[in-house]
Amino acid sequence: MEHIEAIKEFDGWLNRYQHDSVTCHCRMAFSVYLPPQARAGKVPAVYWLSGLTCTDDNFRVKAGAQRYAAELGLALVIPDTSPRGADVPDAERYDLGQGAGFYVNATQAPWSRHYQMYDYVTRELPALVETELPLIPGLRSITGHSMGGHGALICALKEPGLYRSVSAFAPICHPMASGWGQGCFKTYLGNNRETWVAYDATRLIEEGATAMPLLVDQGTADEFLMEQLHPLSLERVCAARNFSLTLRMQEGYDHSYHFISTFIGEHLAWHAKALQVVQTKS
Amino acid sequence: MEHIEAIKEFDGWLNRYQHDSVTCHCRMAFSVYLPPQARAGKVPAVYWLSGLTCTDDNFRVKAGAQRYAAELGLALVIPDTSPRGADVPDAERYDLGQGAGFYVNATQAPWSRHYQMYDYVTRELPALVETELPLIPGLRSITGHSMGGHGALICALKEPGLYRSVSAFAPICHPMASGWGQGCFKTYLGNNRETWVAYDATRLIEEGATAMPLLVDQGTADEFLMEQLHPLSLERVCAARNFSLTLRMQEGYDHSYHFISTFIGEHLAWHAKALQVVQTKS
Repeated sequence: MEHIEAIKEFDGWLNRYQHDSVTCHCRMAFSVYLPPQARAGKVPAVYWLSGLTCTDDNFRVKAGAQRYAAELGLALVIPDTSPRGADVPDAERYDLGQGAGFYVNATQAPWSRHYQMYDYVTRELPALVETELPLIPGLRSITGHSMGGHGALICALKEPGLYRSVSAFAPICHPMASGWGQGCFKTYLGNNRETWVAYDATRLIEEGATAMPLLVDQGTADEFLMEQLHPLSLERVCAARNFSLTLRMQEGYDHSYHFISTFIGEHLAWHAKALQVVQTKS
Repeated sequence: MEHIEAIKEFDGWLNRYQHDSVTCHCRMAFSVYLPPQARAGKVPAVYWLSGLTCTDDNFRVKAGAQRYAAELGLALVIPDTSPRGADVPDAERYDLGQGAGFYVNATQAPWSRHYQMYDYVTRELPALVETELPLIPGLRSITGHSMGGHGALICALKEPGLYRSVSAFAPICHPMASGWGQGCFKTYLGNNRETWVAYDATRLIEEGATAMPLLVDQGTADEFLMEQLHPLSLERVCAARNFSLTLRMQEGYDHSYHFISTFIGEHLAWHAKALQVVQTKS
């Protein structure tokens, strides 16, 4: 992988890399924040999956997460939201194609060659960064926002043991019931809705996914709450399945990074606890 | 003034306003973060002056300052960097005209009608926000970045008593010796360099400005350090005049908001102390 940028922040380094992805068949970019503790030894990593239209840039610029990561000794691994490039299929819409990979493995032409974001995020990227960077192999947690909150939930639900903990900000909890999810699933996965179940957090829990504690923050002033996000569907199936869900309806908060910045510290502390990180700098 | 946006963040509110400026003769936008403490009573304010090409948006999105402001009970007042609009003179260059007001009162046509940012920032805006918002009248500090660091320094140096404290990130310490400063001063103030002295921090101290403690952070990997910023000129005149300067050369940091985000907490704590704010939330 090619190291294309290094910016010092909170005594650690915010790095950007590019590599030729064998999973997505294109050049992919991602960012990794390495906290100061990574100079002395390997550290655990929290993966951040971003929402529609984002690249790796939005989170690293807007969320204010690096301060907490530096305090807690956590690396932040921040992938892009889709394959990219002139050869990669795209759509005119903001919620389909490049910037909208939805963290699935596409099965339909012409998308299937490149849109393999599920395997990219859960397999190729961890293997790459745990080989090349001072990260403790296998010691990972995952979180994200909106489409990326959906991504975090399905990755953790589908891969017992791959992540120590999972959380999400305003996730698309039940994409089969949301316009965003239906548009992408139909395009990437085809018309057979049974194939969509494998990428729907609410349905995965309903179908018997292995229980793990879920932390979800959702703003009550989020403009997408009613039509796209469906946290109450998630709450309903978690209750039915005795799944531990901490769903915090945050009064007055919207869908923006200002909402994320307010609560990212609590999420990283939650993950640090699961990763058994001892706070080494404050 | 018109309240055009309110976003909840750290239990306070990030607001954006527009008003017809009588100083700049155009519609001006600015942001104010009101911490949760402002619900119970009036709070002190820290003014943030941004750098070239910025609006009020950069700082509020990228600096991560609202977390500290919420902890310390400080409002953040974030003006634009120039007058704006189709009727306002502009230039093709990024470092002249709209986005590059340089915090001076222009004397040269056609700039002088609108480019009165010094009076706007030190007079009109404080009077407006202290009338309309829950801010303690007269209890203000000021800081900023690059062109805005220059602005913060000259506002504090030229107006003894107007600000309780001042700090700056990578300020243009001696604009008369920098290409950015020379270009703007020549355009806005004319060819007589004696008129430039009134807006040059290094020269103001040399000419006998009233002493007040200065806190300046400067990254050693800042691409603009040698040609544009001249912190050592500031250091030299402060030493000669027994002016208290804390100049921190921060090893490896660049000119970006990642640098600002790393140290904004320490700057706000410095201002909170000068404003005698008791920490009420942590």
